[in-house]
Amino acid sequence: MNYSEKSSNLLDNAISQFASLPGIGKKTATRFALHLLKKSEPDVENFVNAIKKMKQETKFCKICNNISDHDICTICTNNSRDKSLICVVEGIHDVMAIESTSQYNGLYHVLGGVISPMDGIGPGELSIAPLIHRINIENIKEIILALPATMEGDTTNFYINRKIANVNINVTLLARGVAIGDELQFTDEITLGQSILNRKPFNT
Amino acid sequence: MNYSEKSSNLLDNAISQFASLPGIGKKTATRFALHLLKKSEPDVENFVNAIKKMKQETKFCKICNNISDHDICTICTNNSRDKSLICVVEGIHDVMAIESTSQYNGLYHVLGGVISPMDGIGPGELSIAPLIHRINIENIKEIILALPATMEGDTTNFYINRKIANVNINVTLLARGVAIGDELQFTDEITLGQSILNRKPFNT
Repeated sequence: MNYSEKSSNLLDNAISQFASLPGIGKKTATRFALHLLKKSEPDVENFVNAIKKMKQETKFCKICNNISDHDICTICTNNSRDKSLICVVEGIHDVMAIESTSQYNGLYHVLGGVISPMDGIGPGELSIAPLIHRINIENIKEIILALPATMEGDTTNFYINRKIANVNINVTLLARGVAIGDELQFTDEITLGQSILNRKPFNT
Repeated sequence: MNYSEKSSNLLDNAISQFASLPGIGKKTATRFALHLLKKSEPDVENFVNAIKKMKQETKFCKICNNISDHDICTICTNNSRDKSLICVVEGIHDVMAIESTSQYNGLYHVLGGVISPMDGIGPGELSIAPLIHRINIENIKEIILALPATMEGDTTNFYINRKIANVNINVTLLARGVAIGDELQFTDEITLGQSILNRKPFNT
């Protein structure tokens, strides 16, 4: 005989919702739900409203497709940034990652994915046409292809490169090599091979 | 010069809220926020409403202090359960843990904490008086003290035991011993010592 009883369906629903988040199992989801249950009502209200507003009120920048609170994002409207440089990325998480390095002062273009025939994602599903349009009408000197180092990323790189073959523009790729902190013995052979081919003079 | 720019305050707020959950850092919080951003509006609505309703509409059972969708919880109202048995626990997570074993068919009493002078929690802050009241007016044969195996848990056990010294009732404690799957060498000496003292005949 199974005695197991659910005390509260409302609690259970909240746990199920938390368990739908990536990497979260039922135990952690329960911990989250009980944590919020202990919080004050205004605290939970703030939690819930922050998520709701994020979903309902954020927009995608009409120029670069990055997430934004306005029609045009703060990066595109910032006049101190170099507007002749576009970094092409897969998603907004890549914009956040590159911004957090504080090493890049140009603009972005968020494709919203990479070409992946297996997943039914062709160039038409991505923001590639708007990118070509920007390159054609704006005074762009260089585009940096900062897509994932996967087959899909490489395919997308090739596709974009072919589309702008007739435009006089520098096309660059992110440097690939041994990551800081990595042991050589655990670096894959292709990365290690490329890092030997692309070696740099010491102390520059 | 620092180029780092935030694209969306709304996204940032949602990330901060997720990062306030126990054990969640900024990277995981970002992953949660971007995950929900990709979901449909009704999906996010369901997520948010489940949390809101849990906070606003759950109650605490007027008998046992367990979480409930009604004034009296489903465990207290279930007539197939043994009403002469009360298992005393610290919190509702303990009720969920014991229910998930399907080994217990009695009632519960949720104290809402354990006595901890260091944290300013005395017997008055806990649901101990209602427990004593239940024991005095209901026909209870046994209470199982299932509090954490800590100093605070032990203190609370002693306090409750003293309070009901004049009542004719069995008071039991959860068995302590080597956990299933544990290696003896990694079991602490007090647990191991108790498991030798409380050894059981083989095959019973």
